[in-house]
Amino acid sequence: MADLKGKRVAMVLARNFEDVEATDPKAYLEKLGAKVTVIGVETGTIEGKKGASLETDSTFADASVDDFDAMVIPGGGSPEQLRIHEAPVAFTRAFVESGKPVAAICHGAQLLISANVLDGRTATCVKTIRDDVKNAGANYVDEALVVDGNLITSRVPGDLPQFNEAIAKHLTRVEAAAS
Amino acid sequence: MADLKGKRVAMVLARNFEDVEATDPKAYLEKLGAKVTVIGVETGTIEGKKGASLETDSTFADASVDDFDAMVIPGGGSPEQLRIHEAPVAFTRAFVESGKPVAAICHGAQLLISANVLDGRTATCVKTIRDDVKNAGANYVDEALVVDGNLITSRVPGDLPQFNEAIAKHLTRVEAAAS
Repeated sequence: MADLKGKRVAMVLARNFEDVEATDPKAYLEKLGAKVTVIGVETGTIEGKKGASLETDSTFADASVDDFDAMVIPGGGSPEQLRIHEAPVAFTRAFVESGKPVAAICHGAQLLISANVLDGRTATCVKTIRDDVKNAGANYVDEALVVDGNLITSRVPGDLPQFNEAIAKHLTRVEAAAS
Repeated sequence: MADLKGKRVAMVLARNFEDVEATDPKAYLEKLGAKVTVIGVETGTIEGKKGASLETDSTFADASVDDFDAMVIPGGGSPEQLRIHEAPVAFTRAFVESGKPVAAICHGAQLLISANVLDGRTATCVKTIRDDVKNAGANYVDEALVVDGNLITSRVPGDLPQFNEAIAKHLTRVEAAAS
């Protein structure tokens, strides 16, 4: 098992997230020693689609890409609520451009589309938005896990084991962010 | 009030539709005399997001563009479920190319994206998918009602009065389909 002690992960979240796509990677990465920070548009509790809820640890106004080693974008209705705001879109673009791992599952790719970072990249997503991913310039493939450079993408909750493992693997490769 | 007697409207629908975006145009058009046919991927009852349900009158396998004078695409989660199937996408493309009115509200534009009919057209949609509509080549505008040729688009349930009225207005202009 990877040792992620000292690694810091930004999980960007809004209401109506697909519960397990947030709670499962969070629990997995924390168990390995990483610190996962839930970043929202505003402070408070964020409700998932199916009853889960997570507290916002930070807002985009207070968060800096420099403070994190990796970024996770859970799916469900959450990415649609993030992509309509400038701050999460700018944060996502800066994270992808930093070269540090960015992992998006399911509808998470919608935030990547709005951040305009998919052109020429190979990626996957839930099939209901595959045409949007293609129109954003990506090479869409229907696979459980797709890794293209620092971009890690998966399709659905069933892909979570491979998704989580890929994030942990990439995190062991990056230098810890400056304190 | 427009007289829509003899006019036939195809309403394409799948589960998780935004209730009023289906039930409200259906009631409005039927009150004016039109016949609204709910077309689904398969037969049976289709459940909305908030408790409404509609019976499937026909399936895409049995439906022909020639049998209708206009097409309505309600939003919610329905368009995501339609756009992943070939038959609704082909039906949509053929309807737009026929020149007869096609009206999409909210997430309805997702089906237009997958049908590849938005390039160079002016359209609106719910803001959470505006970037996808732009990437499909459309000229996106944030207005309650946008009419570009035979393409009628609106954003949200609050736009329904203008949306419904525009459909009725266009229906009075088209020749009734062959019986």
